[in-house]
Amino acid sequence: MSKRLTIGLFGFGVVGQGLHDIISTKDLNIEIRKIVIKDPSKPRTLRESLFSADASDILDDPEINTIVELINDADAAFDITANALKNGKNVVSANKKMIAEHLNELVALQNTHGTSLLYEGAVCGSIPIIRNLEEYYDNELLHSISGIFNGSSNYILSKIANEGLEYGDALKQAQDLGFAETDPLLDVGGYDAKYKLVIAAAHAYGAFVKPEQVLNVGIQNFSGADLHFAKEHNLKIKLVPTAKKLNEQEIALYVLPRLVPKSDFLYNVENEYNAVSVKAAFADQQLFYGKGAGGHPTGSAVLSDIAALRYEYRYEYKKFLNDSKLKLQNDHVIPVYIRYKSDGLIGQLNFDFIAEQHQSVELKYVLGGIKISELISKKDLIEKDGAFIAQAGALTGKFEELTRLQFETA
Amino acid sequence: MSKRLTIGLFGFGVVGQGLHDIISTKDLNIEIRKIVIKDPSKPRTLRESLFSADASDILDDPEINTIVELINDADAAFDITANALKNGKNVVSANKKMIAEHLNELVALQNTHGTSLLYEGAVCGSIPIIRNLEEYYDNELLHSISGIFNGSSNYILSKIANEGLEYGDALKQAQDLGFAETDPLLDVGGYDAKYKLVIAAAHAYGAFVKPEQVLNVGIQNFSGADLHFAKEHNLKIKLVPTAKKLNEQEIALYVLPRLVPKSDFLYNVENEYNAVSVKAAFADQQLFYGKGAGGHPTGSAVLSDIAALRYEYRYEYKKFLNDSKLKLQNDHVIPVYIRYKSDGLIGQLNFDFIAEQHQSVELKYVLGGIKISELISKKDLIEKDGAFIAQAGALTGKFEELTRLQFETA
Repeated sequence: MSKRLTIGLFGFGVVGQGLHDIISTKDLNIEIRKIVIKDPSKPRTLRESLFSADASDILDDPEINTIVELINDADAAFDITANALKNGKNVVSANKKMIAEHLNELVALQNTHGTSLLYEGAVCGSIPIIRNLEEYYDNELLHSISGIFNGSSNYILSKIANEGLEYGDALKQAQDLGFAETDPLLDVGGYDAKYKLVIAAAHAYGAFVKPEQVLNVGIQNFSGADLHFAKEHNLKIKLVPTAKKLNEQEIALYVLPRLVPKSDFLYNVENEYNAVSVKAAFADQQLFYGKGAGGHPTGSAVLSDIAALRYEYRYEYKKFLNDSKLKLQNDHVIPVYIRYKSDGLIGQLNFDFIAEQHQSVELKYVLGGIKISELISKKDLIEKDGAFIAQAGALTGKFEELTRLQFETA
Repeated sequence: MSKRLTIGLFGFGVVGQGLHDIISTKDLNIEIRKIVIKDPSKPRTLRESLFSADASDILDDPEINTIVELINDADAAFDITANALKNGKNVVSANKKMIAEHLNELVALQNTHGTSLLYEGAVCGSIPIIRNLEEYYDNELLHSISGIFNGSSNYILSKIANEGLEYGDALKQAQDLGFAETDPLLDVGGYDAKYKLVIAAAHAYGAFVKPEQVLNVGIQNFSGADLHFAKEHNLKIKLVPTAKKLNEQEIALYVLPRLVPKSDFLYNVENEYNAVSVKAAFADQQLFYGKGAGGHPTGSAVLSDIAALRYEYRYEYKKFLNDSKLKLQNDHVIPVYIRYKSDGLIGQLNFDFIAEQHQSVELKYVLGGIKISELISKKDLIEKDGAFIAQAGALTGKFEELTRLQFETA
């Protein structure tokens, strides 16, 4: 039999309201006992006694055994989550920033107090990727995960490439449709994708990495010239977070725009859709595909996590705890396209090799191999130039050097 | 720590050989102790002492704790599996026919003897759909699963539609490429897809259904006229197994060709690829996509199952055992396109309603709503006529009647 859940809910936006609707109409053995909101004066559609502005009305209620945390503020979310886990309550959260930044502490709290924190909704909305990485894909056999993790920036790139929209108009549309974070830099700068990548890597490889150690380059400098270059080579540009096993001890993690060939499953992932591509021994590529952005996809994952708590499900973090964990390696060389403005920029970057350099009135670019660490340390320099960087492994002919160096190109 | 697995392997074809290669090069804490093959005289690439033609060399070896069963013969596979489970050995199998036909007995054996039988490789190759249905998607929240479950028939349909191949030539290509079963009727008649659907439904809905209770109509009668009809309506024809929740107690299960619109994720699944589309409360549609046919995709799932046994993983069948199981309902009405030859056929079929009837020299068809049970009982009649049937919910305008009758069309 399933355990009866008595829920305290933090936040009552789109996801919270949808959750309430489903839980109250289905026979799930779940009850929402109390909802803590920021603004108690706002009119509500449900009876007033359900609401409170005081977190302790949930955290100190011994009858509430499950916390669903759906607030934006990552620091406040961590306080609530830590407090709840310490007090024997299980937690479901979709706050990727909070989880990515506090993974170590959150695992320790779960282990010390025998409580469970689930967060499928934090990574790629309705796609059950965390569960699959945690349970199904073995460390030893998992070559890489990559994908479209941020619906907002994918929407923008799709609209620019397929409908000729300007960057600003595409961003505005994404915001109007509710796909975008309040601060657009979180999306288009690759931060949102990075938090998700960090969480995914923990479950895929047992690698607990701080977000600030991981390279994230966004699409802010994406220009018509880049689109033209991509189209000329029959490629699309996508913002792709990648976690890749380098050897038995090390992984590379990075978020970078990528030149994607038609043969890649990610090529056809458009607009607000998310997808996770998994490459495993023997299996070729597999794709998990669904809606990533918006309240409903997230709500669906949150609901699945809640349902799992009825059966006492918890992440075991076995790859991390079993000492089979892999370590981050930022000296990995990746093949990149860098389109730049100022002639001085390229001289200031230490490439491992340059495969091609092109200069014309319309376009200046370099194709070369460069260490992730070099991109991290020169990130400000590159952004100031207005340069656009993309992982360019798809241009295989250009990167014979990389093959010689025994790096994979994709 | 993971448990050390000592494996006895039945069958040494493509999957078995690939498994051996990976297991012997990776540090997985797994050893293949003995391989039982049918023909001991065949030359082998490995040392002779590893092979035996005597099943008891594996089944009676107390040091072997894990059986990997990769033989074709469903009856022999069941004997091996049942014997192993009784003797305290865990089993990994990819034999969908054996599992679909013996699910009740196999679950009982696991429960009685505390052993585990895993079979992710039996359904859609490398796609981890059984695990996801078992673990992630709750009964209450799962609206439907459908997909492309048979790579061989999908390959044939793709080649006909996209490259203008004749049916016979496309089938021959699929066979040459190793995608097809020895008996092509298993693929093109929808039997293979049905076994997989029955297994999936057990994990999705706790419904244990005998394959012979489930309608399967194949693509054998697919003709140029049908392709023309589909193209005229901007639809593709795919062979789609469907499991659909009708209400809190009942599901419908059927394997039928389907007219698929562009908006459906399955529209773009071509050639030997498999995909599973899951519709869940709140989540819209999600797609799991990967290679389904061939030795390597199956091998990858088998390997994941083996790896999971190191952590004592077992299916809990909780939807079945918790009495939340749903029952098969064959009186469900589905919207169909039936293209026929003999004028007498339609009069012999009891439609719930007919939405459109068309007769010309080139093409005679009916669009109507008909019960699954009626299609089961008249299946021979329909096949003898050379008629082609497809689920036609995509032609929404034609099926207003269905809406009136409160059936969903997709």
